[in-house]
Amino acid sequence: MQQRLGVIDLGSNTTRLIIVGYYPHHSFRLLDEVRENVRLAEGIGADGLLRPAPIERAIATMKLFRSLCLASGVEQIVPVATSAVREATNREEFLARIEREAGLVFRVLSAEEEAYYGYLGVANSLSLGDAFAIDIGGGSTQVTLLRGRRFIRSFSQPIGALRLSDRYVKSDPISNKDFKALEAAAAERFAGLDWLEESHGHTLAGIGGTIRTLADIDQKLRRYPIGLTHAYVFSRERLAELIEMLRGMNIRQREDMPGMNRDRADLILAGAVILHTLMKRGSFDSITVSGQGLREGLFFEHFLVGEQPPLFADMRGFSVQNMARNYGYDAIHAAKVRELSLALFDQLTPLHGFGAWERELLGYASTLHDIGLAVGYYDHHRHGAYLIQSSAMQGFSHREIALLALMVRYHRKGEVGLGDLDELVEPGDAARVGQLTALLRMAEFLERRKSQVVQSLQVEIGERVVVSAQTNGEADIEIWDANRSAGMFRKAFGREIEIVAERR
Amino acid sequence: MQQRLGVIDLGSNTTRLIIVGYYPHHSFRLLDEVRENVRLAEGIGADGLLRPAPIERAIATMKLFRSLCLASGVEQIVPVATSAVREATNREEFLARIEREAGLVFRVLSAEEEAYYGYLGVANSLSLGDAFAIDIGGGSTQVTLLRGRRFIRSFSQPIGALRLSDRYVKSDPISNKDFKALEAAAAERFAGLDWLEESHGHTLAGIGGTIRTLADIDQKLRRYPIGLTHAYVFSRERLAELIEMLRGMNIRQREDMPGMNRDRADLILAGAVILHTLMKRGSFDSITVSGQGLREGLFFEHFLVGEQPPLFADMRGFSVQNMARNYGYDAIHAAKVRELSLALFDQLTPLHGFGAWERELLGYASTLHDIGLAVGYYDHHRHGAYLIQSSAMQGFSHREIALLALMVRYHRKGEVGLGDLDELVEPGDAARVGQLTALLRMAEFLERRKSQVVQSLQVEIGERVVVSAQTNGEADIEIWDANRSAGMFRKAFGREIEIVAERR
Repeated sequence: MQQRLGVIDLGSNTTRLIIVGYYPHHSFRLLDEVRENVRLAEGIGADGLLRPAPIERAIATMKLFRSLCLASGVEQIVPVATSAVREATNREEFLARIEREAGLVFRVLSAEEEAYYGYLGVANSLSLGDAFAIDIGGGSTQVTLLRGRRFIRSFSQPIGALRLSDRYVKSDPISNKDFKALEAAAAERFAGLDWLEESHGHTLAGIGGTIRTLADIDQKLRRYPIGLTHAYVFSRERLAELIEMLRGMNIRQREDMPGMNRDRADLILAGAVILHTLMKRGSFDSITVSGQGLREGLFFEHFLVGEQPPLFADMRGFSVQNMARNYGYDAIHAAKVRELSLALFDQLTPLHGFGAWERELLGYASTLHDIGLAVGYYDHHRHGAYLIQSSAMQGFSHREIALLALMVRYHRKGEVGLGDLDELVEPGDAARVGQLTALLRMAEFLERRKSQVVQSLQVEIGERVVVSAQTNGEADIEIWDANRSAGMFRKAFGREIEIVAERR
Repeated sequence: MQQRLGVIDLGSNTTRLIIVGYYPHHSFRLLDEVRENVRLAEGIGADGLLRPAPIERAIATMKLFRSLCLASGVEQIVPVATSAVREATNREEFLARIEREAGLVFRVLSAEEEAYYGYLGVANSLSLGDAFAIDIGGGSTQVTLLRGRRFIRSFSQPIGALRLSDRYVKSDPISNKDFKALEAAAAERFAGLDWLEESHGHTLAGIGGTIRTLADIDQKLRRYPIGLTHAYVFSRERLAELIEMLRGMNIRQREDMPGMNRDRADLILAGAVILHTLMKRGSFDSITVSGQGLREGLFFEHFLVGEQPPLFADMRGFSVQNMARNYGYDAIHAAKVRELSLALFDQLTPLHGFGAWERELLGYASTLHDIGLAVGYYDHHRHGAYLIQSSAMQGFSHREIALLALMVRYHRKGEVGLGDLDELVEPGDAARVGQLTALLRMAEFLERRKSQVVQSLQVEIGERVVVSAQTNGEADIEIWDANRSAGMFRKAFGREIEIVAERR
């Protein structure tokens, strides 16, 4: 039976609930998400006390979240609090009230635990290698070092977009003097972070709403062709330009920027300055945005119950399976198409010269080729491409997502064209997609009746290519259909092909 | 349990199989479709004999279709043949061979029956009023008169895109002389169709692959913003331009036209000329394309078992329900959102002045507002709009589909904008969508926890609008959330609004 978990993340600025439906180790899907701009850390002074108004907002929100969880059939709620509560001098009193009035017993995460769950979210959703992860929250910022997907160490500063704005943004737009002070404060707070400088060969990942919002704004300005911030890469240069743009704007203008989240319009500049400070400090030229962080990390601990640490052994493979399962795919047909397309790929290596990466992508495209049927039969190849482009698949770059979408788009008809995805791919990818898709289409046609009639394939490469299909029954239809894809093959490989049956 | 029906339509040019999954009178969905370019009527001469090569192609295809049906769990197959078989002098021998070799017992439709099933397809998928329907096939053309959705009479000519091409298209591109002869032949064949001239106040609907392909080409040329040919309207003027374009092209150029179906590239001109002849004859300025015809008509007879004639009593309402069911919607939540948005609509009539049409659309948008969850949680409002725009909903115009998509797109966030759908709507529709969506969003927020806590609404219209929500439990959250949509209401209606709770 499907289980349902609610994760509540009570931050300094934003408070969020996610509800995830899942079958442990098998599949999951986000069912609901609610975000409230509670601003719990608002007005905290030298006394370190949470103020009455934010406390009331937090309690009302927690009641809402709990009642939403109950109404949604959530069996288990995981409520965690971060820096605002961690550092509040009246935290015990506050937590007791939440328990009494909203029935939620919060776990207050230490700075290291906060970094750890952020790391779990990132390491399970981006392919990074050795990397640093930066998580900019409202009240604190965590920097984490990952090696070989392991958590090595973290650094935390009680400085975030909200706290820094509260202190330095005194006019609208910010004065030059205040802006300099803001930059200086950010630089000073991270002065102790020596090990960030050992960053040669490390990539950088960014967590949190500030970074996602910056990515969204950048995408809207560029008219980026897909709407995913997860795995989006943007440069330090671009960030510097955005900061220049933002500091010249008043709050109203910022609120009206496409991609801006209105609740963040007053904090975004301070958050961007923190990010820029850290990128400079570690000499990072670019950052890869993570759509997943703390909340997802907490979820993965439940989903991968028994694993220590809770990391997907094969994140990309899992992600593809998860998507296929969520859209109710035909597993047997997909497995056969995958087997046949990979058999063609392997035996045609002398012609295409591709390696493990292309082989992996072709396998994934085979698994996903029919998911568009969940939308509707007509144009299901287009729908499948839409679903792939709309999905923050774990472990894939946007280029890879584009290649998968294109293979699915053209798996049954049409002449391969990159369309507006050309911006996401690299030179040579049009030909790459053309060749891989020709194999996928041939495999699909050899499974025309979804009956697994073709047992195996033998490819002979001569002036023309001859594919013998060993079948366990009458397969005229499949052979006939597969030969109809010969034109696509010829176009992609510059060689004739013929498919013949060899009945056993 | 879901039933599965296969419908096979053995035409003069194209042969098609559709497989539909359905629960009688409840919901259906197309599961598979296969089209083969059999060209059964190819080479028929004065002796009226089907030729050996087309016969072999037909038999191979019928074996394929039957085996596909078996592999897909189809319980019942409905195979029908039209003019090519109807008029063949060797039909009995041909049908006996198909029965023997492919195990299919064909029903040969009379011209009137062919027109009748086309009518069932159209009358169940377009809102027409009094209308003529034209079905241009490969071997024959049917013209049918509908009044109040009833079949009144039909006219059939054994002349279609294939037969006319065979006879008159002798060079590539066609010579001027042959083109004139083609036009004259089409005009002569429909000379007896006097009652088509009684067309004042009648609309015109078009059935068949020729007309769908012409629509597709026109859409590609215009860069039409949605990919639906069903319910697409195009003008006679535009058709005349297309004919001019097509007659100047050779087959290769036609094949390369975006939207062209390659199997039709040689026949499309003759089909277009037949259509133009009939539009001129009946003085029709435009034609509405039907994506559904004969095959769907045969299916509807099974789906609506017991109804005579098998027509949907409420085609649009059914279409919306069907879509919602196919995407596994939450019926209870959707019904409550519908109830609340319509309560707001009714009581706010003095402010918006809308009538039954807008009320109907708001109700449909309420039913469909969450269907995007079938794609994924994030951006489910966008996904919902995508699903609506991708669906040939029965009985809706493209303008209405655009309005529904926009309401769903903005039901939970964002500021209403028409985007590229502006081409489909009319002046005033931006404001219309703004007002209707403000009501939908308020209703959705009043159902925030999907718990049906709000029982009814009382609206008082003064300088400001006050909405009292009668609740059967604690509803702070819903009231709070609903008040967050007040800004959208103010913007749409130019008036302040407040929502207050009134607990019973």
